[in-house]
Amino acid sequence: MEAWRIWDNKVKPQLSLGRLEYLAVEIVEMLGSLHPAITRPKLLLFAADHGIVAEGVSSSPQEITWQQCVNFAQGGGAIGLICNANNIDLEVIDVGVAHKFEPGIPIVDRKIAWGTQNFLSHAAMSGEQLYKVLKVGVDLVEDSVARGYRIFAFGEMGIGNTTSASALMAALTSFEVTQCCGRGAGLDDRGVAHKCKVIGDALQFHGKLTDPLEILRAYGGFEIAAITGGMLGAASRRAVILVDGFIASMAAAFAIAIEPFAQQYMVFCHESGEGGHPLLLKYLGVEPLLSLKMRLGEGTGAAVAWPIIRQSLDLYLNMNSFSSAKVTDSVAMLKQQGVDLHEYE
Amino acid sequence: MEAWRIWDNKVKPQLSLGRLEYLAVEIVEMLGSLHPAITRPKLLLFAADHGIVAEGVSSSPQEITWQQCVNFAQGGGAIGLICNANNIDLEVIDVGVAHKFEPGIPIVDRKIAWGTQNFLSHAAMSGEQLYKVLKVGVDLVEDSVARGYRIFAFGEMGIGNTTSASALMAALTSFEVTQCCGRGAGLDDRGVAHKCKVIGDALQFHGKLTDPLEILRAYGGFEIAAITGGMLGAASRRAVILVDGFIASMAAAFAIAIEPFAQQYMVFCHESGEGGHPLLLKYLGVEPLLSLKMRLGEGTGAAVAWPIIRQSLDLYLNMNSFSSAKVTDSVAMLKQQGVDLHEYE
Repeated sequence: MEAWRIWDNKVKPQLSLGRLEYLAVEIVEMLGSLHPAITRPKLLLFAADHGIVAEGVSSSPQEITWQQCVNFAQGGGAIGLICNANNIDLEVIDVGVAHKFEPGIPIVDRKIAWGTQNFLSHAAMSGEQLYKVLKVGVDLVEDSVARGYRIFAFGEMGIGNTTSASALMAALTSFEVTQCCGRGAGLDDRGVAHKCKVIGDALQFHGKLTDPLEILRAYGGFEIAAITGGMLGAASRRAVILVDGFIASMAAAFAIAIEPFAQQYMVFCHESGEGGHPLLLKYLGVEPLLSLKMRLGEGTGAAVAWPIIRQSLDLYLNMNSFSSAKVTDSVAMLKQQGVDLHEYE
Repeated sequence: MEAWRIWDNKVKPQLSLGRLEYLAVEIVEMLGSLHPAITRPKLLLFAADHGIVAEGVSSSPQEITWQQCVNFAQGGGAIGLICNANNIDLEVIDVGVAHKFEPGIPIVDRKIAWGTQNFLSHAAMSGEQLYKVLKVGVDLVEDSVARGYRIFAFGEMGIGNTTSASALMAALTSFEVTQCCGRGAGLDDRGVAHKCKVIGDALQFHGKLTDPLEILRAYGGFEIAAITGGMLGAASRRAVILVDGFIASMAAAFAIAIEPFAQQYMVFCHESGEGGHPLLLKYLGVEPLLSLKMRLGEGTGAAVAWPIIRQSLDLYLNMNSFSSAKVTDSVAMLKQQGVDLHEYE
């Protein structure tokens, strides 16, 4: 492959930048250009509320969803800070928050409803709502592509959404509920046991579902489905998808279930400490770039990883070669002797 | 601890930034201030040649050592590029390169000799040379501290230095030679077997040594000992040490063997794909921040990790709190209920 020829001319031992070399080659393939322009990433942060919080599955009050949206939209919170520091453009989108935002706050209004239904006794959303929210994700990515963005990350905010994500994982993968469930924002052991019980009961209520769209509709949430839509839109435009932690990876799993080729455009950025994420990554057959035990969501795992990804591209595009650096070409010498380290990888 | 109180006021679930929180707390302790100023890191890159290359242990010709020094000093190579991109000040120091550099190239001249002796049949250096080169490391760190630096990384360049480092590891830890040995710049399986044989013979020649200084003197190299000195100097000045891959970790292991308190000032940045590095990290009882299978040296693993470390400090220092963000303080609520996630870590 031509990109490997470029790497093998760089003034360093063959493959000695390890995963950074593979990463750049993958992104070059995604972007369909040997010398891609590195544009600023856009982070689309979708927010929504969850009817399932009525079952006491979250340690945090629901109002935190809208309060944090306001905070993020004004550059606050972890994701606001990291996006500013890392030159990532953050957009906060309401797809289902149970709150009316005051005018003037830069939150994009694509509200589908004032939160999902409680999935213990209802489908989280209607078929029409699911279609609408998937389309919100696609449309916002299309808008951004039209404005020049080619690299996307997706974040979420929604009190209760680890419960939705754990239910989605159990329903999609048939892992045990306890393998899919974590502490969320701060459950103790008793709280986790209760959350697992609620999810188990909900799985009973909905019965065995096999269509990924039916599963998404059953358990929600709006922000998760919006991310699934956004990822499908990004993949169809050959844009790079920086996948965050548990919730975003769950959305990615649905995008892949709906359209497997989407996975070719995904960089799994971070293995989270939340619930079933390590197992979900194994299920998807991917090895994340970082493993920092973050479990915050918001897109922070992807945003924190971006400087590493950008460095891989910077090295690929701009690092000098043996000849321009006037250094003896040891890689060519070895190749002449028949030694090519690609064989050992 | 006071730094944890600061983290627990940030507008996020408790401990949800995972290792970034621990990392910032460690660095706050190293720097001895709850609100440290984040200064630019200084990367001291020591270069030297190795007499052991006469045994055919490296796939690269020795001239690459000096050629790369010139390249790095002019902003080239992987380390030159990464330091520029990440706002790290790079200094290249000749402590034993077998080459006379032309005047005008910004390489600091602290040459001890024109390379070490061949450690298959000699001590790599004399006791006086070891003392001198350790002091070069200490002195350069002292100079930099006087100019305001408080964060240090250490890199190296020296064809043959993975052979020195593998011998040092076998001698210090008593792991098998084959467990300590890797491909270096590009050995095939036969080359690795030969390298192991040479190291095994050298261990026989020198016999059992227990004093870490004697081991360093026996196997070299000058650049490794200079890093050991630099790390000891940095720890004694309560400066942060960003530890790179295999060679730098080997130097760190000697700094710790000489003065165990030095480890408190070390952040192990990267697990390399080279030789015994994963095993050496286990031996030291540390878990590196990144694992990208880089095996380039030069300090690149530390320099690539710096943006992650800087982000942890940026979040610790500048992320807003529940009260300033006007978000319900869910961490305080949980603490009132007796739930503290620190108990589960």
